Amino acid sequence: MNHYVSHLEAAIDGTVLPFGRLANTHTGRPIWVRYHLDEVRAAVAPAAIAARAPSLWRYRELLPLPLDQEPVSLGEGMTPLLHCARLGNQLGLSNLFVKDESQLPTGSFKSRGMAAAVSMARWLGVKRVALPTAGNAGGAAAAYAARAGLECFVFMPHDTPVVNQFEAQLYGAKAFRVNGLINDCGKIVKDGAERMGWFDLSTLKEPYRLEGKKTMGLEVAEQMHWHLPDVIFYPTGGGTGLIGMWKAFAELAELGWLRAEGPAGGGLRYPRLISCQAEGCAPIATAFAKGERFAELFPNARTVASGLRVPVAVGDFMILDAIRASGGTAAVGAEAKIAGWMQRASSAEGISICPETAVCFDVLERMAAAGEVKPDERVVVFNTGAAPKYLEAMPFELPTIDKGAVDWNLIER
Amino acid sequence: MNHYVSHLEAAIDGTVLPFGRLANTHTGRPIWVRYHLDEVRAAVAPAAIAARAPSLWRYRELLPLPLDQEPVSLGEGMTPLLHCARLGNQLGLSNLFVKDESQLPTGSFKSRGMAAAVSMARWLGVKRVALPTAGNAGGAAAAYAARAGLECFVFMPHDTPVVNQFEAQLYGAKAFRVNGLINDCGKIVKDGAERMGWFDLSTLKEPYRLEGKKTMGLEVAEQMHWHLPDVIFYPTGGGTGLIGMWKAFAELAELGWLRAEGPAGGGLRYPRLISCQAEGCAPIATAFAKGERFAELFPNARTVASGLRVPVAVGDFMILDAIRASGGTAAVGAEAKIAGWMQRASSAEGISICPETAVCFDVLERMAAAGEVKPDERVVVFNTGAAPKYLEAMPFELPTIDKGAVDWNLIER
Repeated sequence: MNHYVSHLEAAIDGTVLPFGRLANTHTGRPIWVRYHLDEVRAAVAPAAIAARAPSLWRYRELLPLPLDQEPVSLGEGMTPLLHCARLGNQLGLSNLFVKDESQLPTGSFKSRGMAAAVSMARWLGVKRVALPTAGNAGGAAAAYAARAGLECFVFMPHDTPVVNQFEAQLYGAKAFRVNGLINDCGKIVKDGAERMGWFDLSTLKEPYRLEGKKTMGLEVAEQMHWHLPDVIFYPTGGGTGLIGMWKAFAELAELGWLRAEGPAGGGLRYPRLISCQAEGCAPIATAFAKGERFAELFPNARTVASGLRVPVAVGDFMILDAIRASGGTAAVGAEAKIAGWMQRASSAEGISICPETAVCFDVLERMAAAGEVKPDERVVVFNTGAAPKYLEAMPFELPTIDKGAVDWNLIER
Repeated sequence: MNHYVSHLEAAIDGTVLPFGRLANTHTGRPIWVRYHLDEVRAAVAPAAIAARAPSLWRYRELLPLPLDQEPVSLGEGMTPLLHCARLGNQLGLSNLFVKDESQLPTGSFKSRGMAAAVSMARWLGVKRVALPTAGNAGGAAAAYAARAGLECFVFMPHDTPVVNQFEAQLYGAKAFRVNGLINDCGKIVKDGAERMGWFDLSTLKEPYRLEGKKTMGLEVAEQMHWHLPDVIFYPTGGGTGLIGMWKAFAELAELGWLRAEGPAGGGLRYPRLISCQAEGCAPIATAFAKGERFAELFPNARTVASGLRVPVAVGDFMILDAIRASGGTAAVGAEAKIAGWMQRASSAEGISICPETAVCFDVLERMAAAGEVKPDERVVVFNTGAAPKYLEAMPFELPTIDKGAVDWNLIER
């Protein structure tokens, strides 16, 4: 055996599916990867992982790629977990951390999922991949496909941020704008899968992007010395990262790698997951509030946080199950506060905060003020991408100085 | 003693200067930091460094910040050293590597220098910093100043890439456009240093950005298991990184950490440094060709590779000394090939290649074809920043698909 996967499992009904051949969905719903965790436990310990290179592939036994296969890698991970004392102080929090995913290849967390998915696709014989994207997934898919030597087709709504359009072309993808929304793009990918011989890389429509995203949870745990934070704020579009982290924590618990909290004999404590969406596109928050397990399509989706422009998520029930199991909640941030929070958080800490994460800070501020997050709780906010990928989200204009007559009062303003 | 610095040293004439107080230049020329390398050797070994966190601060004994001072850190380094088989094959090179600095905070190598310089400035009591920039230095300075809680003033030419303007404002710097060139911006910073109480962070006008950049050389050596590459291609604007790497290799040699090449008894072999500039701004290449140690101001500097728009470098003699000592050369890449090389290299390997590095590939292609780089030599090309920071450098336009009448022939084109 050269991997630790036991089988695939349909998330909606537990149907067991075979590993080792191409898979997309089961009855239109996502598929889990399951591992022989007892064998992983026997094969590797946290101390061995600590000695490995700082890449998400350090968790190799918890990833699906066979051990004799070279990953498709651009050097992804580990990303820093940055303590934010100044911003925490403003919010009344002494243990505020930002997990800065902007430092990944292509400047966003999407690289984690694509590293795993493209590695698996190449191994399973795929030659061309396709996906719809409203933001960073297109650039990440294009980059990993290029690294793997696969063809990549990317379809994005016409109002996708200009940097995302630029990067798809940079990496040599066959990239197109579509006069519609992301679901229109998704339909083209679906229709083309058979006609064009594409493998569909859409969010949660193959099993392995989820496994790559899972490494966010593995890294947080390792960086906190195998303790978990008390609360996680996560901007939720398709929700793969949130679902993946929850899966990671469960696997770590079963492995026995997590440390108990409090005095000896104390049990494990899992973080409360706070799923954050923008008011202009909040299907998960809406379903959560109604107590439902499945989310309805959010009409007229509209937000400058392009990664949150996901009106319907195929993994809705997985997201909602995880939030509820964690004792967390799904909340909504104000559109009008996005640009302000990008600048406020970025200038407080020097971290490049994207609009999706700005939404998280709006939610966090409200919850901290209401006492729903306690002052000494360990809070981790995920910064899922680099702010300059969203030029459209924060209007700016620099004042001009005349070199011949420098206005020192303007400079001191 | 809580650091290993022995003294500062004027680069132009060897004058010994004291460490531990604010310093800019000596007779207008840069200052070296010198270490008690015998004490470093006694205190730490490569195996100990291998066990440390993946940050440039792992080389703490070779950096000037006292050991009891917390660095100003955004999680910078280590960046991946990526083997590029496909691109190497196109160029007839079997050991081509790209050191991908685009994965640093703020998306460029400038973060290394700023991490060190801002850490030192804060330690030495500075409250406000200022600098001129034609590109990524402004964003990096703004980010690290924000992290440190310092005020930052940034002056940039009016034609600075839009992303660089965006990020300076994002991080809360007081940022200005100037109707002139970078030397006009530099003059404002110089004039304001006394009037405004700024500390001047300009390239090589304080000693510590160089020390931060030095870590590029330390990382390459460690990632190659304490061997050095045969050839390094480095895009040269102010040249801090090239000077810094050469200094790093000398320090590692004196420490005895480098491994000899070839059979037992073989000596150390240093890389040939290939300094690459754009035809529209090539002061170092011009001086090198003339056999001079100092470079004249390059008139009418003009290139889309904004980081190379440096018509006069205060460290010119340090750059030229290093190139010559290494047996390398200074060469010029064609402006007309920049956009093409950005896309060609990025799409071959999935790495986000900036225009400055595109210039390096043009030079490398010519030298490989001429036999000046041998097919099996270990070649490292530095990718100093993320391509999407240079939207202006690569024109692009995605074709549009009508969702109501998908043109499959256009997609397959």
